[in-house]
Amino acid sequence: MAVKYEFIKECKQTGARLGRVHTPHGVIDTPTFMPVGTQATVKAMAPNELKDLGAQIILSNTYHLYIRPGHKLVEKAGGLHGFMNWDRPILTDSGGFQVFSLNELRKIKEEGVEFKSHLDGTKHFFTPEYVMEIENSLGADIMMAFDECTPYPCDWDYAKNSMERTIRWLKRCKDAHKNTEKQALFGIVQGSTYKDLRIESARRTVEIELPGYAVGGLSVGEPKDLMNEVLEYTVPELPKDKPRYLMGVGSPDALLDGAIRGIDMFDCVLPTRIARNGTVMTSKGKLVVRNAEYAEDFLPMDEECDCYACKNFSRAYIRHLIKAGEILGGRLTSIHNLRFLQNLMANIRKAIAEDRLGDYREEFFIKYGYKK
Amino acid sequence: MAVKYEFIKECKQTGARLGRVHTPHGVIDTPTFMPVGTQATVKAMAPNELKDLGAQIILSNTYHLYIRPGHKLVEKAGGLHGFMNWDRPILTDSGGFQVFSLNELRKIKEEGVEFKSHLDGTKHFFTPEYVMEIENSLGADIMMAFDECTPYPCDWDYAKNSMERTIRWLKRCKDAHKNTEKQALFGIVQGSTYKDLRIESARRTVEIELPGYAVGGLSVGEPKDLMNEVLEYTVPELPKDKPRYLMGVGSPDALLDGAIRGIDMFDCVLPTRIARNGTVMTSKGKLVVRNAEYAEDFLPMDEECDCYACKNFSRAYIRHLIKAGEILGGRLTSIHNLRFLQNLMANIRKAIAEDRLGDYREEFFIKYGYKK
Repeated sequence: MAVKYEFIKECKQTGARLGRVHTPHGVIDTPTFMPVGTQATVKAMAPNELKDLGAQIILSNTYHLYIRPGHKLVEKAGGLHGFMNWDRPILTDSGGFQVFSLNELRKIKEEGVEFKSHLDGTKHFFTPEYVMEIENSLGADIMMAFDECTPYPCDWDYAKNSMERTIRWLKRCKDAHKNTEKQALFGIVQGSTYKDLRIESARRTVEIELPGYAVGGLSVGEPKDLMNEVLEYTVPELPKDKPRYLMGVGSPDALLDGAIRGIDMFDCVLPTRIARNGTVMTSKGKLVVRNAEYAEDFLPMDEECDCYACKNFSRAYIRHLIKAGEILGGRLTSIHNLRFLQNLMANIRKAIAEDRLGDYREEFFIKYGYKK
Repeated sequence: MAVKYEFIKECKQTGARLGRVHTPHGVIDTPTFMPVGTQATVKAMAPNELKDLGAQIILSNTYHLYIRPGHKLVEKAGGLHGFMNWDRPILTDSGGFQVFSLNELRKIKEEGVEFKSHLDGTKHFFTPEYVMEIENSLGADIMMAFDECTPYPCDWDYAKNSMERTIRWLKRCKDAHKNTEKQALFGIVQGSTYKDLRIESARRTVEIELPGYAVGGLSVGEPKDLMNEVLEYTVPELPKDKPRYLMGVGSPDALLDGAIRGIDMFDCVLPTRIARNGTVMTSKGKLVVRNAEYAEDFLPMDEECDCYACKNFSRAYIRHLIKAGEILGGRLTSIHNLRFLQNLMANIRKAIAEDRLGDYREEFFIKYGYKK
């Protein structure tokens, strides 16, 4: 199998687990956060910077790469690793989320999803088999199955039918996946926010033996407590000897709450997206560095941070760069936010090792200004 | 004096000279090219990257910094060096070029120039005295006098009057400059493309004793040969023991031809501006990496280049980034173009040391595809 989960220990205070995911391109310490490199680049970042700030794995988006520059071109370049010159692990999503988000531009059939490109309106048809072909060309260490991510809210009947189809598609994905030696296919649990559907989806997904499983369809607009509730009854259905990935989650509170509920892997565009707009996460909470109040503030964005941006530049300078539309502004805030989350994950791992992740969460929430 | 020129040797084949400029923030090997950091950042670049590619001095723009974030703020941050965290030499222009470029937004008087901000239309008034105050706040190692850069073409009478005023303003600049210990004021020779005016301007400018002199008003649309002609009769009027700076020049041919005519310092936005549009300078000439012909070209932008971009990424990948509007695209092409010019200047210095800059120019022109 391309990917193996090594369990180290469980936090005695919570259900969080410390582990390692072994992949063809190296080891990932879990719980981990994966920066998102939608178009074969984590926005504003160079690979050497991602390494410097401690990223062990990144995520890239199948839909975007299929549309541009095309998976065949990426394959010719030696897969995503060669194309973007990233020699550490990569995970690709399946394009499902993007294709379903196209709304009036797509049509769902049992065979697959017909959709129009957001770039030029050309027609395309994604089937589980075709998505596997694309992901095999991209060559990521972990590839996600083609699923439907149901919106929130979503009625029970729709969620049930969609979940059933996602399972049928998962079987087709498994059959079509050509490179099991070097690429691990992960299945995705769906079922919206319905306990019966989630449990059924988890059980039937796990019946299909795969090297890892994800919880999808969350962080799509539902309240925070509801996400935690779903995790509480879904995660126990997942095998202990496989990595568990919560898709699309990247706010500090959700990372903590997900880890506490037994999640090993997370991803989200949030840290880089808000960074480019001038908002950063700091040890004392969010800071909108583009605001006028920082015009003459010569402190670093986060006094406790060890990133290149915080060690070398002031809030006043970064605010100036962002106000002036200078590229370096978004670069520095992106470096910071990604480093902030890497540090958060390292702290989470340390707290698990010390059996005190519950305490750490409480301390973090108070300092960050979250309600408990 | 804040800045001292150390003459090393003259090329026996040409009039080029090898030297060093000593400044409060370090030594610059000349001939040198200065990347432009208009708004206190060389576009798309971080200071550590500029150092990695060998930049020994950068230029920043007084007009832009005065407008945003304001020179008083920069002064509070410890001057430009502190504000942007660049500990090597900096040169600031005087804002003259920008203010005169505002056209209908400005009014020239003997006292100074009244203009409206390009950002918000607010009225401002630059006098030689005020520009010195601003440049003193910015704290660059080298600061340029407030002059009028005449357009091309420009009639003799206008050029004559403007040149006279520039000399009167230079005297006022010298009187107003408050920080001669740490900041060197350079005078600027004007006179459009008229030999008599250029020679008069040079002689009268040099009469005003200063640590360095620049040739301004070139590279403003005149033919290439005309620029070289002006340099041929202007540069010999400049003192041998002071640095000579040709303003606004950055194409490889003009750098070679300027060095051959005895110029020590150059600056231009060209390398970073064309880079962001997807054009790079290579050892075999210009390459528009965003063009379709490079879609499946897995060679580096320049096979002879040692920059981070060329050592790690293909034309196909960089083309993809630029087509997709990804920040990393413009970063990589900017790194390359700036490194290309640093390498060119190093080669020029080597050729001067070996008394073969004429031969080197010929070899370079053939390879680059320039007409002789």
